[in-house]
Amino acid sequence: MKAYALLGGPETEWPHNINQIFKQAKKENNLIVGVDRGSLLLEEMHIVPDLAIGDFDSLKKEELSQIESNVPDIRYSNPVKDLTDSELMLQIVFEDYHVDNLVVLGASGGRLDHFLVNILMLLNPRVEKYAERIEFLDKQNLVKYYLPGQHIVKKQLNYSYFGVGNLSPVKDLKIDKARYDLANYNNIYPRIFSSNEFKKDTDSFNLSFKKGLIIVIFAKDIDRFQNIK
Amino acid sequence: MKAYALLGGPETEWPHNINQIFKQAKKENNLIVGVDRGSLLLEEMHIVPDLAIGDFDSLKKEELSQIESNVPDIRYSNPVKDLTDSELMLQIVFEDYHVDNLVVLGASGGRLDHFLVNILMLLNPRVEKYAERIEFLDKQNLVKYYLPGQHIVKKQLNYSYFGVGNLSPVKDLKIDKARYDLANYNNIYPRIFSSNEFKKDTDSFNLSFKKGLIIVIFAKDIDRFQNIK
Repeated sequence: MKAYALLGGPETEWPHNINQIFKQAKKENNLIVGVDRGSLLLEEMHIVPDLAIGDFDSLKKEELSQIESNVPDIRYSNPVKDLTDSELMLQIVFEDYHVDNLVVLGASGGRLDHFLVNILMLLNPRVEKYAERIEFLDKQNLVKYYLPGQHIVKKQLNYSYFGVGNLSPVKDLKIDKARYDLANYNNIYPRIFSSNEFKKDTDSFNLSFKKGLIIVIFAKDIDRFQNIK
Repeated sequence: MKAYALLGGPETEWPHNINQIFKQAKKENNLIVGVDRGSLLLEEMHIVPDLAIGDFDSLKKEELSQIESNVPDIRYSNPVKDLTDSELMLQIVFEDYHVDNLVVLGASGGRLDHFLVNILMLLNPRVEKYAERIEFLDKQNLVKYYLPGQHIVKKQLNYSYFGVGNLSPVKDLKIDKARYDLANYNNIYPRIFSSNEFKKDTDSFNLSFKKGLIIVIFAKDIDRFQNIK
């Protein structure tokens, strides 16, 4: 089973087909998760989450009542807590619901403190083990995480560029068979190599490293009138 | 002298008064810098940058010609290079133009590979020394950087929340006199503590740490119709 979680990030950054993504997910009996305000945003799309997580303190009383009236599983988090709402969500979907993979939406745009909390949370040793089973998806980007080893990274439909970055100290990072290759790169601080591309007539590149947490950001340009190129 | 630099991030994420910010900066004889497509976006606001930096490969021929016809200082960067365009910009404004402080706009939103390159670039030892003189500004956020030592962080007008995070291994991080304090926090990986607030009737908190690069993100909520609360 797969899970689709919606966080509270602004709608302007959502993938244009978000409604379809959640409708399809529901149809295929995947798990629909709302995190905090994301629960309400799902209800507004007429999608009842299977699971809602948060302290819900940004919600009005009647908004929370609506969620409480129809969501089968609600987990109330403690605002002064050890795990953030998003980290708690990872723990619940992987440990209690045993999902195989998770797609996170609504993480980007808006408040940067929220965005960075989410994108960096996979560095927390308590949830890092889930890293390779998680994707972040927004209007222009698809983010995937990689743990040490050898990987074949496949081209993703409609994304022209990709960036590769180490979020923690990295050892012997190698990018091979991409437009811009990298050989045995070592660094103690996080760094992103952006705007790389797949080679013409290839649909993958090789990624390997011995230590560290790597993200690959698949990105597309959008023109200023918000149409996808 | 202060510098104001515009990067190529989407207009939807700009501060609502960006035009006024640049017009005022020009009036006060501060340095106006366009980085890559940011140069063109400035021209479209009828603001001629004093300095344009980039490889400009995303610009059409006539767009680049326009910039070349009226910008007094143009620096062409090499697409396969040691420093990114933004890092090169830091080096030029601080070393060649001797500016005191820099405000960066147009860094957030859109492509996450570009955003993360920019927000993380201050970890590069070649430019880290400029960290405390740089701010990132967008529609909802103001990001400031801190080097080891003792700091009094002042409340910023209209920002209700702040997040504090270490972008590199941190030693003895202390937040004192805020709503949520932190005592002698140590961590080897980056982590953000979001949604902190200034205490009622106070307009600062104390921040100290012995090692690491810290960001403070001042943030405000915006309602879904994009009005600032």
